[in-house]
Amino acid sequence: MKHKYAAIAVLFGSCADRYVLQGYTPQRSFEEMLADARKVKGITGIEVIGGWHINDRNQHERVRQIAKAGFELAGVIPEIWANPKWGWGTFASTDKGIRRDAIERVKVAMDLAAGTGCNHVSPWFGHDGWDYVFQMDYLKAYDWIVQGLGECAEHNPKVKISVEFKPKEPRTHILVSSTAKTLLLVNEVNQPNVGINLDTGHANMGYETLAECVALMKRFGNKLFHLHLNDNYRLWDDDMIPGSVHTLEWIEFLHWLERTGYKGWFSLDVFAFREKNKVAVATESIAWLEALSAATARLDPREVQAVLRSGDAMRAQRLVRKALLGH
Amino acid sequence: MKHKYAAIAVLFGSCADRYVLQGYTPQRSFEEMLADARKVKGITGIEVIGGWHINDRNQHERVRQIAKAGFELAGVIPEIWANPKWGWGTFASTDKGIRRDAIERVKVAMDLAAGTGCNHVSPWFGHDGWDYVFQMDYLKAYDWIVQGLGECAEHNPKVKISVEFKPKEPRTHILVSSTAKTLLLVNEVNQPNVGINLDTGHANMGYETLAECVALMKRFGNKLFHLHLNDNYRLWDDDMIPGSVHTLEWIEFLHWLERTGYKGWFSLDVFAFREKNKVAVATESIAWLEALSAATARLDPREVQAVLRSGDAMRAQRLVRKALLGH
Amino acid sequence: MKHKYAAIAVLFGSCADRYVLQGYTPQRSFEEMLADARKVKGITGIEVIGGWHINDRNQHERVRQIAKAGFELAGVIPEIWANPKWGWGTFASTDKGIRRDAIERVKVAMDLAAGTGCNHVSPWFGHDGWDYVFQMDYLKAYDWIVQGLGECAEHNPKVKISVEFKPKEPRTHILVSSTAKTLLLVNEVNQPNVGINLDTGHANMGYETLAECVALMKRFGNKLFHLHLNDNYRLWDDDMIPGSVHTLEWIEFLHWLERTGYKGWFSLDVFAFREKNKVAVATESIAWLEALSAATARLDPREVQAVLRSGDAMRAQRLVRKALLGH
Amino acid sequence: MKHKYAAIAVLFGSCADRYVLQGYTPQRSFEEMLADARKVKGITGIEVIGGWHINDRNQHERVRQIAKAGFELAGVIPEIWANPKWGWGTFASTDKGIRRDAIERVKVAMDLAAGTGCNHVSPWFGHDGWDYVFQMDYLKAYDWIVQGLGECAEHNPKVKISVEFKPKEPRTHILVSSTAKTLLLVNEVNQPNVGINLDTGHANMGYETLAECVALMKRFGNKLFHLHLNDNYRLWDDDMIPGSVHTLEWIEFLHWLERTGYKGWFSLDVFAFREKNKVAVATESIAWLEALSAATARLDPREVQAVLRSGDAMRAQRLVRKALLGH
Repeated sequence: MKHKYAAIAVLFGSCADRYVLQGYTPQRSFEEMLADARKVKGITGIEVIGGWHINDRNQHERVRQIAKAGFELAGVIPEIWANPKWGWGTFASTDKGIRRDAIERVKVAMDLAAGTGCNHVSPWFGHDGWDYVFQMDYLKAYDWIVQGLGECAEHNPKVKISVEFKPKEPRTHILVSSTAKTLLLVNEVNQPNVGINLDTGHANMGYETLAECVALMKRFGNKLFHLHLNDNYRLWDDDMIPGSVHTLEWIEFLHWLERTGYKGWFSLDVFAFREKNKVAVATESIAWLEALSAATARLDPREVQAVLRSGDAMRAQRLVRKALLGH
Repeated sequence: MKHKYAAIAVLFGSCADRYVLQGYTPQRSFEEMLADARKVKGITGIEVIGGWHINDRNQHERVRQIAKAGFELAGVIPEIWANPKWGWGTFASTDKGIRRDAIERVKVAMDLAAGTGCNHVSPWFGHDGWDYVFQMDYLKAYDWIVQGLGECAEHNPKVKISVEFKPKEPRTHILVSSTAKTLLLVNEVNQPNVGINLDTGHANMGYETLAECVALMKRFGNKLFHLHLNDNYRLWDDDMIPGSVHTLEWIEFLHWLERTGYKGWFSLDVFAFREKNKVAVATESIAWLEALSAATARLDPREVQAVLRSGDAMRAQRLVRKALLGH
Repeated sequence: MKHKYAAIAVLFGSCADRYVLQGYTPQRSFEEMLADARKVKGITGIEVIGGWHINDRNQHERVRQIAKAGFELAGVIPEIWANPKWGWGTFASTDKGIRRDAIERVKVAMDLAAGTGCNHVSPWFGHDGWDYVFQMDYLKAYDWIVQGLGECAEHNPKVKISVEFKPKEPRTHILVSSTAKTLLLVNEVNQPNVGINLDTGHANMGYETLAECVALMKRFGNKLFHLHLNDNYRLWDDDMIPGSVHTLEWIEFLHWLERTGYKGWFSLDVFAFREKNKVAVATESIAWLEALSAATARLDPREVQAVLRSGDAMRAQRLVRKALLGH
Repeated sequence: MKHKYAAIAVLFGSCADRYVLQGYTPQRSFEEMLADARKVKGITGIEVIGGWHINDRNQHERVRQIAKAGFELAGVIPEIWANPKWGWGTFASTDKGIRRDAIERVKVAMDLAAGTGCNHVSPWFGHDGWDYVFQMDYLKAYDWIVQGLGECAEHNPKVKISVEFKPKEPRTHILVSSTAKTLLLVNEVNQPNVGINLDTGHANMGYETLAECVALMKRFGNKLFHLHLNDNYRLWDDDMIPGSVHTLEWIEFLHWLERTGYKGWFSLDVFAFREKNKVAVATESIAWLEALSAATARLDPREVQAVLRSGDAMRAQRLVRKALLGH
C-alpha cells in the first residue's frame, strides 16, 4: 500500500437521507462495521463520529473494540452536528449556553483522543451558517469561532485540531466554507495544534482545485493536518469513490501531497447510500487510490518541473495522459 | 387571496436530513399538523405523502381528518420513494417485481384520489437514476417509465397523474430531470390524464427559467397540471420560501401562469428544517406569494406586450422594477 | 484510427474573448489553418463557420482549398451568430426581416453543403434567448424556431440539418438549451433531415450525462446526426481537450455511441485560446480520444450487460477502472 | 442620491465577446462615452481601463477630458489583461520579463492616479491561473503575487491598490479567486495601501454572500477599498444590472456596507452587450440601487439586531419583505 489508509466508520454503516430516514441498508452494530473493515486490505485506521459511533458512556469501550480489531484510532469527530440541538449553530450560535456546550463537546473528544494516543480531533461547523439573508451577524460569528478554537487549542496542546470546512449542506451557506477562509480563521487562532482537515469533496463543491488547496495550506501556515477522501459532481457533497469523477485532478492532487510532504492519514469518507456490500466500497476506493497513486509515481519529476515552468497546457495533458494510460 | 393555496403536510411536520436523522424539531402527529394548517390564513388544501402521512391502513382515516379540518385533499403523492426498498429504482428498476410493486402503489394512490374526488396523484421518480457511470441502461429505463405511466393512466382516466421531475437528489442524476424531458415522456404516453407537476425549485436547480417552463408545457401538450412552490440558491433543492431568492423571476412566472390560464393549486412545498413555528413558515410563504402576485397585477398588459415585442432588457427591467417597487 | 475525425477550422486559428479582442495568438489565414490540419494524424474532415471562415464571395474557393488539402468538408455552420446584427435573435427574432434573413443564411449554407456532397449544415441558435426576465415571448419563439426549421428542411431534403443546443453563452439563457428540448423541437418539425448536433461541452454545462444524451436521441427519433467534441468544468463552455476533465464519463459515452450505432464524424470543437501550437492541440485531442476508445474496447460486453442489469455501482466502477487502467 | 456613483467607461462603450468580435453595438469614441455619462443623473466618477480607454500616449489627455466633463477619476485599472501578451500570466507569469513588465504597468497606473489626486488603482489578475491540471506551480505563484504587490505598495504609499478577485474567466481557474484568498494575500503583503475591490458579480460566481464578504473584509484587516457593482445568475460573470437577480441579497449587502462604514465609490461595472442605449443602462442601474437603498433605509435597526440575535429565518424574511414591499 502506498498510503496509510483509514475509514470513517460510517462507510461500513447504513446511510440515510431526508427521504429515506431509516437508511437504505439495514442498521449495523459497531462490531459489524469493524468486522467488515477487517476484510478490506489496506485499512489500518478508523475514525469515529460523536453521536453516531461514540457517546460519553460507550467511548472507552469503542476505543477498546477498535484496538482489539487491530486498528488505530485515526481521529475523533466531535459530537457537534448529529443532534437537533446544534441545528442553529455551535461555536457561532447566538445562544451562549450552546456555544459553551459545543466547546465542551470538542474538549471531551480531545480528552478521548489524548487518552488513546490518537491525539487528533476534527470538528466540523456544519450548522454554523445561514439559509436566508439577515440570519447571521457575521462579525460576531468569526469572533466566536476564533475564540472557541483558541480555548480548545489551549485545552491540550498535544491534541491536533483539524477544522473541516464545507461551503453548504446542511445549511445553504456554511460560515467555515473554503480552504482560504479556514486558513484566515486558524491563522488568527495562531496555535500550532490548530489546522485543517481537507475534505476533498467539500473543496470540489467550492470549485477549488485539490492540488491548489494543498499548496495553499502549505504556503499559509503548513496547515494540512488530515484528509477526508471522496469525489462528487462538483455541485453537491455526493461522497463518492475517490477519483471516480475528477480522475485527472486526483493525479495532480496526489502529486502535490507528495511534493509538500504530507505524511498523514488517507481517510475514506464515502457515503455508500445504496451499496449493500460495504467491503466492496472500501476495497474499490483503495483500488482507485492505489491505481492513481501508481500513475502519479510514473510522472517524471524533471518533466513535471519543465511542464510547470512552461505553463504549456498540451505538455501538461501529455504528461498526465502518459502517466494514466502509459501511452 | 389571489390563488388557491395548498400545502404538503410535511411543511407542518418535522424535517430531518442525513446528519440530523431524528429531525430538527419534535415529531408531530397528523392532527397537530392539521391544527397548525388551520391557523394559516389562505390555505384550503392539503397534500399527503405516501409512507409519511398515509399508508394502506390509515389512508381513509387521514382523508376524513383532512375533510373534518375543513380542507380539500389537493393531491396524493404515491408511496414510491420513502422506503429503502425503492432505493434502486421504481418504475425503471431492473427488478421486475419492484417495477410491478411501484406501479401498484401509484394505483393505490389513484384509487384513494378517485374515492375522495381529489382525482389527482403526483408520482416522483426520485430513485430512478444513476450515481456512477455504467449504472443504468437508459433505453430500457425510458421504456419502463413510459409503459408504467401508460398502465396507470388507463387504470383510471378520471384521475390526473402529474409527474414531478428533478435533476438530482437523492440520486446524483435522476432520469426524469427537466420540463423538456418530462414532456418527451408524457407526450409519448399520450393520455389526457398524464401531465406535469412543476416543482419550482427543481426547475431552478436545472437552470430553467420558471416562466419559460410554463410556456413550454403550454406549447407542447398543455401539460401543466400542478405546482409545488419553493425557491433555492439554484445548486440544490433548498426548499425555501417562494420568491425569497429569485424574486423577479417569480413575478415573470406568476405573469405567465395567468397568461396561460393556470387555474390549479398553488401548493407550498417548503422544508422548514430549522423553523419551530410552522405556522409562521406557511404564513410567510403566502405573504410573499400574495405580495408578488400584487406586483404582477400592477403590470400593464399593453406595456408587457410592447416590452416583449421590443426584446429591450432595460424596458423589461423598468417594467418589473415599477411593478415591484412602485417607482 | 478508431473514428472518422474532423475539426472545426477555428481550432487552427486564433481565439479571442471579451478581454483580449485581438486574439491570444496571431491571426492566421485559411491556408495556414489547413496546412496545420494536414500535420495532424487522423483528421480527414474540416468544418467551416459562416462569417469566420466562409462568406458568399469566398465559399466556393474555400471548398476547393479544403478538397485540395485532402480533406472532406464535414459540415457547414451557417452564418447566423458571428455578426452583431444577430445579437437580438435569428429564427426567433421579434424582427420579421431578421427571421427571414437568418432562414436564408441557413439555406445558403445548405446549398453549399449540397453542391459539395457534404450534405450537412449545423445551425446554432446562440442568440435566440434572453438575459433578463420579461425579455422573450417564449410561445412565439418556439413557433418561429419550428417554422424556420421546417422551411429549411423542405428547402433540400437531401441536406441534413443538425441543430446544436447550448444552455447559455452568449445569452445568459438560450432557448434551444438541452438534448430533450431540442428533441421536442425537431420532433415537432418532424422531417427526416432535421436532427441534432451534440456538442459534448454544451451537454456538460446542463448537467447532462453524455451517454444518456446518446440514448435519449436514439430513443426519441434516432436524431443524433453529428458530434462536436470538447470537455469543460461543467459550469461554462471551456472548450477543452475531450476527456480532459470527465474522463470516465467519456468512456461511457464512447460505449453508448458504439452501442447505438453512431457512424458519423467525431469533430473536434476545441478553443485553444492560449495554445500557440495548434497541431499539438489537435494531436493531443485525438490521442485522448484514441486512448479512451481503446479503453472502451477493453470493456467485456457481457460484463457491461451484467453490470447494467445489476445497477451495482461498485461493479460499474470496477468495470470502468479495469478498462481504463488494466488492473 | 444616496451614494457616490461612478461607472467604468466600458459601460458606455461597445461590448464584444468571443463570437461577435467586432462588438454588438457600434464602436464609440471616449468623448461619446463621456457625453453619455453626463446624461445619467447621479454619476460623478469615471473609471478607465488601461489598454482600452487609456495608454501611455493619451492618458493625460483622457484625464483632462474626464475633468472637463465634470467627473472625478474614480480609479485606474492597470493595463495587465487587455493584451495577448498577458495571456499566460502577469505578476505570476513564469516569465521573469513579463512579471517585471506587469509590475511596471501597475506603477504607471499608480503614477497617473497619484498625479490626478484619484490615488486609486485596481489591478485584476485575470490571466494568472490555470486551465488544465499540472499547468501552474501554485507555490511560486503566491510568492510572486505577494512580492509584486509589495513592490507596488512601496512605489507610492499614497495610492491605494484595490485587488479585484474572480474565480474564473478568462482562465477556467484564476488564482486570486475569492474574498478570503485575496485577504490571505493582501494581509501577507501587509501594507495599509493594499486592499480589495469587491466585484459583486465575481463574489456571486463563487457562491459568496455579498453581505458576508463585506463583514469578512471588515474583520480581517478592514480591507474593502472599492466596489464594482453588477449581478449575475451565479454561474458566470453576466455583468447585469445590480440587484436584477439576487434582489434580497442586495438589501442585506447595502445594509452591511452602511453598518461597516463603507464610504467609497459605488462603481457600475455592467457589460451592456446588447443594449444600444447606454444612458438607459446606467440610469436603470442607479434606479435599482437607489430603490434598494431606500428599502434598506426602511429597515428598523433595532429589529435588525433582534432578528440577528434570534437567527429566526421567518423573522428575517418578514423584515426584508416589509422593507422591500412595505407590507
